Amino acid sequence: MTTKQIIDQIHKKKSFLCVGLDVDLNKIPKHLLKKENPIFEFNKAIIDATHKYCVAYKPNTAFYEAYGIKGWKALEKTIAYLNTNYPDIFTIADAKRGDIGNTSTMYAKAFFEDLGFDAVTIAPYMGKDSVEPFLAFKDKHSILLALTSNEGAFDFQTKLIDGIELYKQVIETSKTYKNADNLMYVVGATKATFLKEIRQMIPENFLLVPGVGAQGGSLKEVCRYGMNASVGLLVNSSRGIIYASSDENFAKAAREKAKELQQDMAIELSQRF
Amino acid sequence: MTTKQIIDQIHKKKSFLCVGLDVDLNKIPKHLLKKENPIFEFNKAIIDATHKYCVAYKPNTAFYEAYGIKGWKALEKTIAYLNTNYPDIFTIADAKRGDIGNTSTMYAKAFFEDLGFDAVTIAPYMGKDSVEPFLAFKDKHSILLALTSNEGAFDFQTKLIDGIELYKQVIETSKTYKNADNLMYVVGATKATFLKEIRQMIPENFLLVPGVGAQGGSLKEVCRYGMNASVGLLVNSSRGIIYASSDENFAKAAREKAKELQQDMAIELSQRF
Repeated sequence: MTTKQIIDQIHKKKSFLCVGLDVDLNKIPKHLLKKENPIFEFNKAIIDATHKYCVAYKPNTAFYEAYGIKGWKALEKTIAYLNTNYPDIFTIADAKRGDIGNTSTMYAKAFFEDLGFDAVTIAPYMGKDSVEPFLAFKDKHSILLALTSNEGAFDFQTKLIDGIELYKQVIETSKTYKNADNLMYVVGATKATFLKEIRQMIPENFLLVPGVGAQGGSLKEVCRYGMNASVGLLVNSSRGIIYASSDENFAKAAREKAKELQQDMAIELSQRF
Repeated sequence: MTTKQIIDQIHKKKSFLCVGLDVDLNKIPKHLLKKENPIFEFNKAIIDATHKYCVAYKPNTAFYEAYGIKGWKALEKTIAYLNTNYPDIFTIADAKRGDIGNTSTMYAKAFFEDLGFDAVTIAPYMGKDSVEPFLAFKDKHSILLALTSNEGAFDFQTKLIDGIELYKQVIETSKTYKNADNLMYVVGATKATFLKEIRQMIPENFLLVPGVGAQGGSLKEVCRYGMNASVGLLVNSSRGIIYASSDENFAKAAREKAKELQQDMAIELSQRF
Protein backbone atom coordinates (compact mmCIF):
# COMPACT_ATOMS: atom_id res chain seq x y z
CA MET A 1 0.00 0.00 0.00
CA THR A 2 1.43 3.39 -0.97
CA THR A 3 1.50 6.38 1.36
CA LYS A 4 -0.78 8.21 -1.09
CA GLN A 5 -3.37 5.45 -0.75
CA ILE A 6 -3.26 5.79 3.04
CA ILE A 7 -3.78 9.57 2.78
CA ASP A 8 -6.67 9.11 0.33
CA GLN A 9 -8.37 6.72 2.73
CA ILE A 10 -7.94 9.16 5.62
CA HIS A 11 -9.70 11.92 3.70
CA LYS A 12 -12.38 9.58 2.37
CA LYS A 13 -13.25 8.20 5.82
CA LYS A 14 -12.45 11.43 7.69
CA SER A 15 -10.49 9.27 10.07
CA PHE A 16 -6.89 8.50 10.92
CA LEU A 17 -7.85 5.88 13.48
CA CYS A 18 -5.90 2.68 13.87
CA VAL A 19 -7.59 -0.05 15.91
CA GLY A 20 -5.22 -2.20 17.94
CA LEU A 21 -6.21 -5.86 17.91
CA ASP A 22 -4.58 -6.95 21.19
CA VAL A 23 -6.76 -9.93 21.89
CA ASP A 24 -6.61 -11.41 25.36
CA LEU A 25 -8.79 -14.51 25.87
CA ASN A 26 -9.38 -13.41 29.47
CA LYS A 27 -11.02 -10.21 28.28
CA ILE A 28 -13.18 -11.22 25.33
CA PRO A 29 -16.87 -12.08 25.75
CA LYS A 30 -17.31 -15.52 27.31
CA HIS A 31 -19.70 -16.82 24.63
CA LEU A 32 -16.91 -16.63 22.03
CA LEU A 33 -14.76 -19.11 23.92
CA LYS A 34 -17.02 -21.94 22.70
CA LYS A 35 -16.08 -21.22 19.07
CA GLU A 36 -13.28 -23.09 17.33
CA ASN A 37 -11.15 -19.98 16.87
CA PRO A 38 -12.28 -17.42 19.48
CA ILE A 39 -9.50 -14.91 18.72
CA PHE A 40 -10.34 -14.78 15.03
CA GLU A 41 -14.10 -14.67 15.70
CA PHE A 42 -13.54 -11.74 18.03
CA ASN A 43 -11.34 -9.92 15.49
CA LYS A 44 -13.80 -10.57 12.66
CA ALA A 45 -16.68 -9.12 14.66
CA ILE A 46 -14.61 -6.11 15.72
CA ILE A 47 -13.38 -5.49 12.16
CA ASP A 48 -16.84 -5.80 10.61
CA ALA A 49 -18.22 -3.38 13.20
CA THR A 50 -15.46 -0.75 13.09
CA HIS A 51 -13.94 -0.73 9.58
CA LYS A 52 -16.01 2.26 8.45
CA TYR A 53 -14.47 4.40 11.15
CA CYS A 54 -10.80 3.49 10.90
CA VAL A 55 -8.11 3.31 8.25
CA ALA A 56 -5.78 0.80 9.91
CA TYR A 57 -5.68 -2.27 12.13
CA LYS A 58 -2.71 -3.21 14.27
CA PRO A 59 -2.54 -6.68 15.82
CA ASN A 60 0.20 -6.86 18.45
CA THR A 61 1.93 -10.15 17.73
CA ALA A 62 2.64 -10.86 21.43
CA PHE A 63 -1.03 -11.56 22.04
CA TYR A 64 -1.04 -14.18 19.26
CA GLU A 65 2.31 -15.81 20.07
CA ALA A 66 1.09 -16.27 23.64
CA TYR A 67 -1.42 -18.82 22.29
CA GLY A 68 1.13 -20.76 20.23
CA ILE A 69 0.04 -22.37 16.95
CA LYS A 70 -3.61 -21.46 17.65
CA GLY A 71 -2.60 -17.84 18.06
CA TRP A 72 -0.59 -17.81 14.85
CA LYS A 73 -3.49 -19.35 12.96
CA ALA A 74 -5.70 -16.59 14.34
CA LEU A 75 -3.18 -13.97 13.19
CA GLU A 76 -2.98 -15.52 9.71
CA LYS A 77 -6.77 -15.70 9.44
CA THR A 78 -7.14 -12.11 10.67
CA ILE A 79 -4.72 -10.61 8.15
CA ALA A 80 -6.16 -12.77 5.37
CA TYR A 81 -9.66 -11.62 6.30
CA LEU A 82 -8.57 -7.99 6.19
CA ASN A 83 -6.72 -8.31 2.89
CA THR A 84 -9.64 -10.15 1.26
CA ASN A 85 -12.56 -8.13 2.54
CA TYR A 86 -11.10 -4.71 3.24
CA PRO A 87 -8.15 -4.25 0.86
CA ASP A 88 -8.12 -0.47 1.41
CA ILE A 89 -7.25 -0.93 5.09
CA PHE A 90 -3.64 -0.35 6.15
CA THR A 91 -2.39 -3.32 8.19
CA ILE A 92 0.36 -3.10 10.80
CA ALA A 93 2.06 -6.03 12.52
CA ASP A 94 3.04 -4.57 15.87
CA ALA A 95 5.97 -6.91 16.32
CA LYS A 96 8.82 -4.62 17.45
CA ARG A 97 11.36 -6.81 15.68
CA GLY A 98 14.99 -6.10 14.83
CA ASP A 99 18.00 -8.40 14.46
CA ILE A 100 21.24 -8.67 12.49
CA GLY A 101 20.88 -8.25 8.73
CA ASN A 102 20.08 -11.73 7.41
CA THR A 103 17.76 -12.35 10.35
CA SER A 104 15.85 -9.10 9.87
CA THR A 105 15.36 -10.16 6.26
CA MET A 106 13.66 -13.33 7.56
CA TYR A 107 11.36 -11.23 9.75
CA ALA A 108 10.58 -8.87 6.87
CA LYS A 109 9.64 -11.82 4.66
CA ALA A 110 7.49 -13.29 7.42
CA PHE A 111 5.43 -10.16 7.92
CA PHE A 112 5.42 -8.54 4.48
CA GLU A 113 5.34 -11.58 2.19
CA ASP A 114 4.01 -14.61 4.04
CA LEU A 115 1.44 -12.87 6.21
CA GLY A 116 0.87 -9.93 3.86
CA PHE A 117 1.01 -6.99 6.25
CA ASP A 118 1.57 -3.47 4.89
CA ALA A 119 3.78 -2.44 7.80
CA VAL A 120 5.72 -3.75 10.77
CA THR A 121 7.01 -2.00 13.89
CA ILE A 122 10.76 -2.20 14.50
CA ALA A 123 13.02 -1.68 17.54
CA PRO A 124 16.01 0.51 16.62
CA TYR A 125 18.60 -0.65 19.20
CA MET A 126 20.67 -2.73 16.75
CA GLY A 127 20.94 0.07 14.19
CA LYS A 128 21.21 0.39 10.44
CA ASP A 129 21.71 -3.21 9.26
CA SER A 130 18.83 -4.38 11.47
CA VAL A 131 16.42 -1.84 9.95
CA GLU A 132 17.41 -1.59 6.27
CA PRO A 133 16.29 -5.15 5.37
CA PHE A 134 12.73 -4.05 6.18
CA LEU A 135 13.07 -0.85 4.14
CA ALA A 136 14.02 -2.79 1.02
CA PHE A 137 10.41 -3.84 0.45
CA LYS A 138 8.60 -1.53 -1.99
CA ASP A 139 5.25 -0.08 -0.84
CA LYS A 140 5.77 -1.63 2.59
CA HIS A 141 6.29 0.52 5.67
CA SER A 142 8.69 0.15 8.56
CA ILE A 143 7.53 1.87 11.72
CA LEU A 144 10.51 2.58 13.95
CA LEU A 145 10.11 2.93 17.71
CA ALA A 146 11.19 6.47 18.56
CA LEU A 147 9.47 7.64 21.74
CA THR A 148 7.20 5.06 23.29
CA SER A 149 4.29 5.75 25.63
CA ASN A 150 5.41 3.65 28.58
CA GLU A 151 7.21 4.70 31.75
CA GLY A 152 10.37 2.83 30.71
CA ALA A 153 10.74 5.27 27.79
CA PHE A 154 12.61 7.50 30.24
CA ASP A 155 15.23 4.81 30.97
CA PHE A 156 17.10 5.33 27.70
CA GLN A 157 15.02 7.04 24.99
CA THR A 158 15.09 10.49 26.57
CA LYS A 159 18.73 10.34 27.71
CA LEU A 160 21.00 12.94 26.12
CA ILE A 161 23.70 12.03 23.60
CA ASP A 162 25.78 15.12 22.76
CA GLY A 163 22.90 17.19 24.09
CA ILE A 164 20.31 15.41 21.95
CA GLU A 165 17.85 12.80 23.24
CA LEU A 166 18.41 9.22 22.09
CA TYR A 167 14.98 9.08 20.40
CA LYS A 168 15.93 12.12 18.32
CA GLN A 169 19.24 10.47 17.45
CA VAL A 170 17.25 7.45 16.32
CA ILE A 171 15.13 9.66 14.08
CA GLU A 172 18.10 11.63 12.68
CA THR A 173 20.24 8.57 12.06
CA SER A 174 17.39 6.60 10.48
CA LYS A 175 16.91 9.39 7.93
CA THR A 176 20.27 8.35 6.43
CA TYR A 177 19.21 4.70 5.97
CA LYS A 178 18.66 3.36 2.47
CA ASN A 179 14.99 3.72 1.39
CA ALA A 180 14.31 5.90 4.45
CA ASP A 181 11.16 7.21 2.78
CA ASN A 182 9.54 3.90 3.75
CA LEU A 183 9.90 4.88 7.42
CA MET A 184 7.19 5.86 9.85
CA TYR A 185 7.77 6.41 13.57
CA VAL A 186 6.08 5.41 16.82
CA VAL A 187 5.61 8.44 19.06
CA GLY A 188 3.54 8.07 22.22
CA ALA A 189 0.66 10.48 22.77
CA THR A 190 1.47 10.75 26.45
CA LYS A 191 4.21 13.18 25.44
CA ALA A 192 2.26 15.21 22.88
CA THR A 193 4.35 18.36 23.27
CA PHE A 194 7.41 16.38 22.16
CA LEU A 195 5.60 15.97 18.84
CA LYS A 196 6.34 19.58 17.94
CA GLU A 197 10.09 19.02 17.89
CA ILE A 198 9.73 15.68 16.17
CA ARG A 199 7.66 17.30 13.41
CA GLN A 200 10.45 19.79 12.77
CA MET A 201 12.88 16.89 12.34
CA ILE A 202 10.61 14.81 10.09
CA PRO A 203 8.01 17.08 8.49
CA GLU A 204 6.97 14.44 5.95
CA ASN A 205 6.84 11.07 7.69
CA PHE A 206 3.77 9.45 9.17
CA LEU A 207 3.67 9.02 12.94
CA LEU A 208 1.92 6.11 14.61
CA VAL A 209 0.65 7.46 17.91
CA PRO A 210 -0.40 5.06 20.67
CA GLY A 211 -1.54 6.22 24.07
CA VAL A 212 -4.70 8.16 23.17
CA GLY A 213 -7.56 7.00 25.36
CA ALA A 214 -6.69 4.25 27.86
CA GLN A 215 -3.17 5.66 28.39
CA GLY A 216 -4.44 9.23 28.80
CA GLY A 217 -3.22 11.12 25.73
CA SER A 218 -5.26 13.94 24.18
CA LEU A 219 -6.30 13.76 20.52
CA LYS A 220 -6.49 17.53 20.23
CA GLU A 221 -2.91 17.96 21.46
CA VAL A 222 -1.63 15.21 19.17
CA CYS A 223 -3.23 16.92 16.17
CA ARG A 224 -2.03 20.35 17.20
CA TYR A 225 1.60 19.29 17.37
CA GLY A 226 1.77 16.26 15.10
CA MET A 227 -0.41 16.86 12.04
CA ASN A 228 1.27 17.85 8.79
CA ALA A 229 0.11 18.81 5.30
CA SER A 230 -0.60 15.15 4.47
CA VAL A 231 -2.24 14.53 7.86
CA GLY A 232 0.80 12.39 8.77
CA LEU A 233 -0.86 10.75 11.74
CA LEU A 234 -2.26 7.37 12.58
CA VAL A 235 -3.70 7.42 16.09
CA ASN A 236 -4.06 4.04 17.70
CA SER A 237 -6.61 2.91 20.23
CA SER A 238 -6.73 -0.70 21.40
CA ARG A 239 -8.37 -1.47 24.74
CA GLY A 240 -10.64 1.61 24.65
CA ILE A 241 -12.35 0.22 21.56
CA ILE A 242 -12.11 -3.55 21.53
CA TYR A 243 -12.98 -3.99 25.22
CA ALA A 244 -15.68 -1.30 25.33
CA SER A 245 -18.04 -4.06 26.43
CA SER A 246 -17.54 -7.69 27.38
CA ASP A 247 -21.11 -8.86 26.78
CA GLU A 248 -22.75 -10.13 23.59
CA ASN A 249 -23.06 -6.59 22.26
CA PHE A 250 -19.27 -6.08 22.33
CA ALA A 251 -19.02 -5.37 18.60
CA LYS A 252 -21.70 -2.71 18.73
CA ALA A 253 -20.02 -1.10 21.76
CA ALA A 254 -16.69 -1.15 19.91
CA ARG A 255 -18.35 0.50 16.89
CA GLU A 256 -19.71 3.28 19.09
CA LYS A 257 -16.27 3.94 20.59
CA ALA A 258 -14.60 3.89 17.18
CA LYS A 259 -17.27 6.20 15.80
CA GLU A 260 -16.77 8.65 18.68
CA LEU A 261 -13.05 8.83 17.97
CA GLN A 262 -13.68 9.12 14.23
CA GLN A 263 -16.03 12.03 14.81
CA ASP A 264 -13.44 13.81 16.92
CA MET A 265 -10.93 13.17 14.15
CA ALA A 266 -13.32 14.51 11.50
CA ILE A 267 -13.51 17.77 13.45
CA GLU A 268 -9.71 18.02 13.64
CA LEU A 269 -9.43 17.32 9.91
CA SER A 270 -12.16 19.82 8.99
CA GLN A 271 -10.25 22.56 10.82
CA ARG A 272 -7.18 22.00 8.65
CA PHE A 273 -8.24 20.60 5.25
CA MET B 1 16.83 -24.16 35.01
CA THR B 2 18.93 -22.53 37.72
CA THR B 3 22.24 -20.77 37.07
CA LYS B 4 23.95 -23.38 39.23
CA GLN B 5 22.64 -26.15 36.97
CA ILE B 6 24.07 -24.34 33.93
CA ILE B 7 27.47 -24.02 35.62
CA ASP B 8 27.43 -27.70 36.64
CA GLN B 9 26.73 -28.71 33.04
CA ILE B 10 29.58 -26.53 31.78
CA HIS B 11 32.08 -28.26 34.06
CA LYS B 12 30.66 -31.70 33.36
CA LYS B 13 30.84 -31.29 29.57
CA LYS B 14 33.92 -29.03 29.62
CA SER B 15 32.01 -26.80 27.26
CA PHE B 16 30.21 -23.47 27.29
CA LEU B 17 29.08 -23.81 23.70
CA CYS B 18 25.64 -22.69 22.59
CA VAL B 19 24.55 -23.92 19.16
CA GLY B 20 22.38 -21.47 17.23
CA LEU B 21 19.55 -23.20 15.39
CA ASP B 22 18.99 -20.61 12.63
CA VAL B 23 17.42 -22.91 10.09
CA ASP B 24 17.15 -21.63 6.54
CA LEU B 25 15.43 -24.02 4.12
CA ASN B 26 17.71 -22.74 1.34
CA LYS B 27 20.77 -23.93 3.24
CA ILE B 28 19.82 -27.32 4.66
CA PRO B 29 20.61 -30.57 2.80
CA LYS B 30 18.26 -31.08 -0.12
CA HIS B 31 17.22 -34.62 0.85
CA LEU B 32 15.52 -33.26 3.99
CA LEU B 33 13.12 -31.15 1.95
CA LYS B 34 11.12 -34.29 1.09
CA LYS B 35 10.30 -34.88 4.77
CA GLU B 36 7.06 -33.62 6.30
CA ASN B 37 8.83 -31.24 8.68
CA PRO B 38 12.28 -30.51 7.23
CA ILE B 39 13.18 -27.84 9.80
CA PHE B 40 12.49 -30.13 12.73
CA GLU B 41 14.22 -33.10 11.07
CA PHE B 42 17.28 -30.91 10.51
CA ASN B 43 17.25 -29.68 14.12
CA LYS B 44 16.76 -33.19 15.51
CA ALA B 45 19.74 -34.50 13.56
CA ILE B 46 21.90 -31.53 14.59
CA ILE B 47 20.88 -31.85 18.25
CA ASP B 48 21.47 -35.62 18.37
CA ALA B 49 24.89 -35.12 16.80
CA THR B 50 26.09 -32.15 18.86
CA HIS B 51 24.46 -32.35 22.32
CA LYS B 52 27.51 -33.94 23.95
CA TYR B 53 29.62 -30.93 23.04
CA CYS B 54 27.34 -28.07 23.96
CA VAL B 55 25.33 -26.88 26.96
CA ALA B 56 22.75 -24.73 25.18
CA TYR B 57 20.71 -24.40 21.99
CA LYS B 58 19.40 -21.12 20.68
CA PRO B 59 16.80 -21.09 17.91
CA ASN B 60 16.40 -17.62 16.45
CA THR B 61 12.64 -17.18 16.16
CA ALA B 62 12.88 -15.15 12.93
CA PHE B 63 13.85 -18.24 10.99
CA TYR B 64 10.74 -20.04 12.23
CA GLU B 65 8.29 -17.17 11.85
CA ALA B 66 9.43 -16.79 8.25
CA TYR B 67 7.75 -20.15 7.53
CA GLY B 68 4.45 -19.27 9.21
CA ILE B 69 2.48 -22.02 10.98
CA LYS B 70 4.88 -24.68 9.67
CA GLY B 71 7.78 -22.78 11.19
CA TRP B 72 6.05 -22.41 14.55
CA LYS B 73 5.24 -26.11 14.59
CA ALA B 74 8.91 -26.79 13.94
CA LEU B 75 9.88 -24.49 16.81
CA GLU B 76 7.39 -26.18 19.15
CA LYS B 77 8.61 -29.63 18.16
CA THR B 78 12.25 -28.59 18.56
CA ILE B 79 11.87 -27.22 22.07
CA ALA B 80 9.68 -30.18 23.07
CA TYR B 81 12.31 -32.56 21.70
CA LEU B 82 15.02 -30.80 23.69
CA ASN B 83 13.02 -30.70 26.92
CA THR B 84 12.04 -34.37 26.64
CA ASN B 85 15.33 -35.89 25.52
CA TYR B 86 17.96 -33.53 26.86
CA PRO B 87 16.50 -31.87 29.97
CA ASP B 88 19.97 -30.73 31.13
CA ILE B 89 20.36 -28.50 28.07
CA PHE B 90 19.78 -24.76 28.53
CA THR B 91 17.34 -23.47 25.90
CA ILE B 92 17.27 -19.91 24.61
CA ALA B 93 14.58 -18.37 22.40
CA ASP B 94 16.52 -15.73 20.49
CA ALA B 95 13.50 -13.52 20.00
CA LYS B 96 14.75 -10.02 20.89
CA ARG B 97 11.32 -9.08 22.21
CA GLY B 98 10.27 -6.12 24.34
CA ASP B 99 7.02 -4.18 24.59
CA ILE B 100 4.94 -2.26 27.13
CA GLY B 101 4.30 -4.11 30.39
CA ASN B 102 1.17 -6.19 29.77
CA THR B 103 2.41 -7.07 26.30
CA SER B 104 5.83 -8.20 27.54
CA THR B 105 3.99 -10.43 29.98
CA MET B 106 2.29 -12.08 26.99
CA TYR B 107 5.67 -12.65 25.34
CA ALA B 108 7.13 -14.03 28.57
CA LYS B 109 4.24 -16.48 28.88
CA ALA B 110 4.64 -17.51 25.24
CA PHE B 111 8.32 -18.36 25.55
CA PHE B 112 8.66 -19.48 29.17
CA GLU B 113 5.34 -21.24 29.78
CA ASP B 114 3.78 -22.31 26.49
CA LEU B 115 6.97 -23.20 24.62
CA GLY B 116 9.00 -24.03 27.73
CA PHE B 117 12.25 -22.20 27.01
CA ASP B 118 14.69 -21.49 29.85
CA ALA B 119 15.62 -18.07 28.49
CA VAL B 120 14.64 -15.39 26.00
CA THR B 121 16.62 -12.51 24.48
CA ILE B 122 15.20 -9.03 25.02
CA ALA B 123 15.73 -5.65 23.36
CA PRO B 124 16.20 -2.92 25.99
CA TYR B 125 14.99 0.17 24.09
CA MET B 126 11.64 0.43 25.91
CA GLY B 127 13.20 0.24 29.38
CA LYS B 128 12.21 -1.07 32.77
CA ASP B 129 8.53 -1.97 32.37
CA SER B 130 9.29 -3.81 29.12
CA VAL B 131 11.97 -5.98 30.77
CA GLU B 132 10.67 -6.65 34.30
CA PRO B 133 7.72 -8.83 33.20
CA PHE B 134 10.29 -11.34 31.90
CA LEU B 135 12.34 -11.17 35.12
CA ALA B 136 9.33 -12.13 37.21
CA PHE B 137 9.61 -15.79 36.15
CA LYS B 138 11.59 -17.86 38.66
CA ASP B 139 14.49 -19.94 37.30
CA LYS B 140 13.99 -18.38 33.86
CA HIS B 141 16.61 -16.11 32.35
CA SER B 142 16.24 -12.85 30.45
CA ILE B 143 19.14 -12.10 28.16
CA LEU B 144 19.31 -8.38 27.48
CA LEU B 145 20.92 -7.03 24.31
CA ALA B 146 23.84 -4.89 25.45
CA LEU B 147 26.49 -4.73 22.73
CA THR B 148 25.59 -6.66 19.60
CA SER B 149 28.04 -8.02 17.03
CA ASN B 150 26.66 -6.26 13.95
CA GLU B 151 27.85 -3.08 12.27
CA GLY B 152 24.70 -1.21 13.32
CA ALA B 153 25.78 -1.58 16.96
CA PHE B 154 27.76 1.63 16.40
CA ASP B 155 24.63 3.59 15.44
CA PHE B 156 23.37 3.93 19.01
CA GLN B 157 24.84 1.35 21.41
CA THR B 158 28.31 2.90 21.57
CA LYS B 159 27.12 6.52 21.66
CA LEU B 160 28.01 8.43 24.84
CA ILE B 161 25.41 9.48 27.39
CA ASP B 162 27.05 11.64 30.07
CA GLY B 163 30.37 10.20 28.96
CA ILE B 164 29.16 6.60 29.22
CA GLU B 165 28.23 4.41 26.24
CA LEU B 166 24.54 3.56 25.84
CA TYR B 167 25.21 -0.19 26.16
CA LYS B 168 26.87 0.46 29.53
CA GLN B 169 23.90 2.58 30.57
CA VAL B 170 21.68 -0.35 29.62
CA ILE B 171 23.75 -2.65 31.83
CA GLU B 172 23.90 -0.18 34.77
CA THR B 173 20.21 0.68 34.62
CA SER B 174 19.11 -2.93 34.25
CA LYS B 175 20.95 -3.81 37.48
CA THR B 176 18.29 -1.77 39.32
CA TYR B 177 15.38 -3.74 37.81
CA LYS B 178 13.36 -6.04 40.05
CA ASN B 179 14.74 -9.62 40.01
CA ALA B 180 17.83 -8.39 38.15
CA ASP B 181 19.68 -11.56 39.16
CA ASN B 182 17.72 -13.31 36.42
CA LEU B 183 19.55 -11.20 33.84
CA MET B 184 22.18 -12.27 31.37
CA TYR B 185 23.58 -10.04 28.62
CA VAL B 186 24.33 -10.35 24.91
CA VAL B 187 27.84 -9.08 24.17
CA GLY B 188 29.26 -9.61 20.68
CA ALA B 189 32.65 -11.32 20.37
CA THR B 190 33.73 -8.97 17.62
CA LYS B 191 34.46 -6.45 20.37
CA ALA B 192 36.20 -8.78 22.84
CA THR B 193 38.26 -6.05 24.48
CA PHE B 194 35.03 -4.33 25.51
CA LEU B 195 34.34 -7.43 27.62
CA LYS B 196 36.94 -6.34 30.15
CA GLU B 197 35.00 -3.21 31.09
CA ILE B 198 31.71 -5.05 31.00
CA ARG B 199 33.07 -7.66 33.42
CA GLN B 200 33.96 -4.91 35.89
CA MET B 201 30.37 -3.67 35.74
CA ILE B 202 28.76 -7.11 36.05
CA PRO B 203 31.23 -9.53 37.61
CA GLU B 204 28.55 -12.15 38.31
CA ASN B 205 26.20 -12.31 35.34
CA PHE B 206 26.42 -14.72 32.45
CA LEU B 207 27.23 -13.27 29.03
CA LEU B 208 25.87 -14.76 25.81
CA VAL B 209 28.55 -14.14 23.21
CA PRO B 210 27.71 -14.43 19.51
CA GLY B 211 30.19 -13.68 16.77
CA VAL B 212 32.82 -16.38 17.42
CA GLY B 213 33.54 -18.21 14.19
CA ALA B 214 31.60 -17.01 11.14
CA GLN B 215 31.64 -13.40 12.37
CA GLY B 216 35.38 -13.49 13.17
CA GLY B 217 35.61 -13.27 16.98
CA SER B 218 38.37 -15.08 18.88
CA LEU B 219 37.50 -17.61 21.59
CA LYS B 220 40.78 -17.01 23.41
CA GLU B 221 40.13 -13.26 23.63
CA VAL B 222 36.56 -13.78 24.79
CA CYS B 223 37.74 -16.06 27.60
CA ARG B 224 40.60 -13.77 28.55
CA TYR B 225 38.32 -10.78 29.06
CA GLY B 226 34.93 -12.33 29.73
CA MET B 227 35.37 -15.40 31.93
CA ASN B 228 34.60 -15.11 35.64
CA ALA B 229 34.81 -17.39 38.66
CA SER B 230 31.61 -19.21 37.55
CA VAL B 231 32.75 -19.33 33.91
CA GLY B 232 30.02 -16.79 33.17
CA LEU B 233 30.11 -17.34 29.41
CA LEU B 234 27.96 -18.99 26.81
CA VAL B 235 29.62 -18.71 23.42
CA ASN B 236 27.30 -19.13 20.48
CA SER B 237 28.06 -20.51 17.06
CA SER B 238 25.33 -20.96 14.48
CA ARG B 239 26.30 -21.14 10.81
CA GLY B 240 29.83 -22.42 11.51
CA ILE B 241 28.33 -25.58 13.03
CA ILE B 242 24.94 -26.25 11.50
CA TYR B 243 26.01 -25.53 7.92
CA ALA B 244 29.43 -27.20 8.16
CA SER B 245 28.26 -29.43 5.32
CA SER B 246 25.20 -29.45 3.09
CA ASP B 247 25.36 -33.10 2.02
CA GLU B 248 23.89 -36.17 3.69
CA ASN B 249 26.71 -36.20 6.24
CA PHE B 250 25.72 -32.76 7.55
CA ALA B 251 25.11 -33.97 11.12
CA LYS B 252 28.50 -35.64 11.33
CA ALA B 253 30.18 -32.50 9.97
CA ALA B 254 28.28 -30.39 12.53
CA ARG B 255 29.43 -32.75 15.29
CA GLU B 256 33.07 -32.34 14.21
CA LYS B 257 32.79 -28.55 14.28
CA ALA B 258 31.05 -28.58 17.66
CA LYS B 259 33.68 -30.98 19.00
CA GLU B 260 36.51 -28.72 17.77
CA LEU B 261 35.01 -25.74 19.59
CA GLN B 262 34.36 -27.84 22.70
CA GLN B 263 37.97 -28.96 22.75
CA ASP B 264 39.19 -25.37 22.50
CA MET B 265 36.81 -24.52 25.35
CA ALA B 266 38.08 -27.43 27.44
CA ILE B 267 41.61 -25.99 27.14
CA GLU B 268 40.42 -22.56 28.24
CA LEU B 269 38.56 -24.09 31.20
CA SER B 270 41.50 -26.28 32.23
CA GLN B 271 43.73 -23.21 32.44
CA ARG B 272 41.39 -21.59 34.96
CA PHE B 273 39.54 -24.28 36.92
